[in-house]
Amino acid sequence: MTTKMRSEIAEQPAALRDTLDSLLPRVDEVRRLAGETRQLLFVARGTSDNAAVYGRYLIEAHAGRLCALGAPSIATTYRRRLDLDGVLAVGLSQSGRTEEIVETLDWAKSCGAKTVAITNGGPASPLAEIADLALCTLAGEEKAVPATKTYTTQLAALAVLALGLGADVNADDLQRVPDAVEKLIDDPGDLAAVVEGLADKPGVVVSGRGLAFSTALELALKLKEACYLHAMGLSYADLLHGPIAVVDEDTPAILVAAGEGPTLPGTVALAERVTGAGAAAYGVGGGTALAAVSTAALNGPDLPEWVAPMGLIVPGQLLTEALARRLGIDPDAPRGLNKVTQTD
Amino acid sequence: MTTKMRSEIAEQPAALRDTLDSLLPRVDEVRRLAGETRQLLFVARGTSDNAAVYGRYLIEAHAGRLCALGAPSIATTYRRRLDLDGVLAVGLSQSGRTEEIVETLDWAKSCGAKTVAITNGGPASPLAEIADLALCTLAGEEKAVPATKTYTTQLAALAVLALGLGADVNADDLQRVPDAVEKLIDDPGDLAAVVEGLADKPGVVVSGRGLAFSTALELALKLKEACYLHAMGLSYADLLHGPIAVVDEDTPAILVAAGEGPTLPGTVALAERVTGAGAAAYGVGGGTALAAVSTAALNGPDLPEWVAPMGLIVPGQLLTEALARRLGIDPDAPRGLNKVTQTD
Repeated sequence: MTTKMRSEIAEQPAALRDTLDSLLPRVDEVRRLAGETRQLLFVARGTSDNAAVYGRYLIEAHAGRLCALGAPSIATTYRRRLDLDGVLAVGLSQSGRTEEIVETLDWAKSCGAKTVAITNGGPASPLAEIADLALCTLAGEEKAVPATKTYTTQLAALAVLALGLGADVNADDLQRVPDAVEKLIDDPGDLAAVVEGLADKPGVVVSGRGLAFSTALELALKLKEACYLHAMGLSYADLLHGPIAVVDEDTPAILVAAGEGPTLPGTVALAERVTGAGAAAYGVGGGTALAAVSTAALNGPDLPEWVAPMGLIVPGQLLTEALARRLGIDPDAPRGLNKVTQTD
Repeated sequence: MTTKMRSEIAEQPAALRDTLDSLLPRVDEVRRLAGETRQLLFVARGTSDNAAVYGRYLIEAHAGRLCALGAPSIATTYRRRLDLDGVLAVGLSQSGRTEEIVETLDWAKSCGAKTVAITNGGPASPLAEIADLALCTLAGEEKAVPATKTYTTQLAALAVLALGLGADVNADDLQRVPDAVEKLIDDPGDLAAVVEGLADKPGVVVSGRGLAFSTALELALKLKEACYLHAMGLSYADLLHGPIAVVDEDTPAILVAAGEGPTLPGTVALAERVTGAGAAAYGVGGGTALAAVSTAALNGPDLPEWVAPMGLIVPGQLLTEALARRLGIDPDAPRGLNKVTQTD
């Protein structure tokens, strides 16, 4: 039987094509709204927050504006106003109905921010309705609890946002993403070896740096929510500041990197350190350099670093789905979770 | 035998007194430097980054300025300049010698930021030397690898920073902190029960919200680095967005809250949800409300919420030290770690 999660993973090339076709013509709208803003404030939770981490690195590294990941409790729990003049606030919610995020974006607007919604909930969703500009992803309905196509299309919307902010990247690279994702679905690499390597382990460290850090966080979240694995998502640098102690023969590491870019050498060195300590290191992406020093490797996309995260998560999604089934868990409906999460 | 870590935990009341006596007279210096700035950018790693999370919530909730936790790789790896005019950049490093942090604070200055160093490395440390203003903590030499007194004194320095930014709090509350910490060292609550509850578990979730979120992250880091536990530090709201699935009879939760404040009711409700799902919930602080619904409880300080994190971590430090010994680990020198961490 094919799980809904597996079907939705396979729908990503089409979802990405539809979303990019719909949003790329809107770069000028972003430019007009964001032209006067100097900074960004992302408002999100869970998978959407991991997408925001991608947006943060993309926009700082390539569009030169300072980004903050917002703490919604300042708005919803402490009820404190901040001076957000000159700030572009970006709210992300797959459903567009998570009240905490809607309330916080509305608060940001009342504090003087310009606002953008990124949602799969459509233009009539509460989040889209309150925003100055809504970038709606076209992922279609997502039925499995673990988000897949709604996540990668969020990344596509963030890439469009970055273009509107004048990012120094080649917009044509985006056109290569759907095919690259398709290729990864067809050939994710040595999935069986990684599934077996994780199947009897209680925990795993997932690490990446810079733009790929978002992928590490998202893969760790997937493994926590659908495989009940103690998955700790950490940046390469944070890992070395203490938690490297936790990596041992019972705690492998999954290391994520684009096939090119300035964070690749450090990721390769980290894989060597992990295997040198007697633990397994599973590479995701990172080209032949990372695969060569990994215990087993999943493929990454043949894409420039700035768009690579849209592909890098795909073998991780397939890993999550396969590992959940291997562990006797229905990945479509993990315990304790609903599709629209409400937090106060 | 008493470990160095245990001795250094006990030195915290004196270290906090010395640090506050030294830094409180300097509030006006902060005010003069920071007067024209509108936002903050924290630059830190590891334990210092957890301190920055406290600074971020404190300054947003009580001094009304937007705060961002910086991504050092933008400076050191991507080498991208940002417009930081009007930004107060705060670099935190216990040694004052972590090159990545020194380099990133220097970069922030060159991008137009005013700069503050918070360090235990003294005024001659590289971080203090490059900053416009250095707030030096007086924790004395720390020999155990897991930071304790250098962390709580960092929090004290951040409280002084917040006063200089005009925080709407009662500065006199700070004078109560050393005694409250002393009381927790003498009576941390049911430490033995929590040690036994964690001793045979591979992982634990540590959660808190708002100002106490910093304590949850710091306790999770301590348990990872000194007890090799798969400790996942998560905000209350992020936990409900997926990772709640990981909490089960083999994965207890540690829930942290001040004895008062707007995040307490949600933390109590979370403890009830965890125990309702058949897992253990260990409360840290949260007064009688949290203790009443917890499987076992550690005491918190009798302090207002804004200064409570300086005490809330103390029973967690004692827990880490005792659990490490229970597991046969020398908490003073966990595997894989050095006292001054260098990352590129």
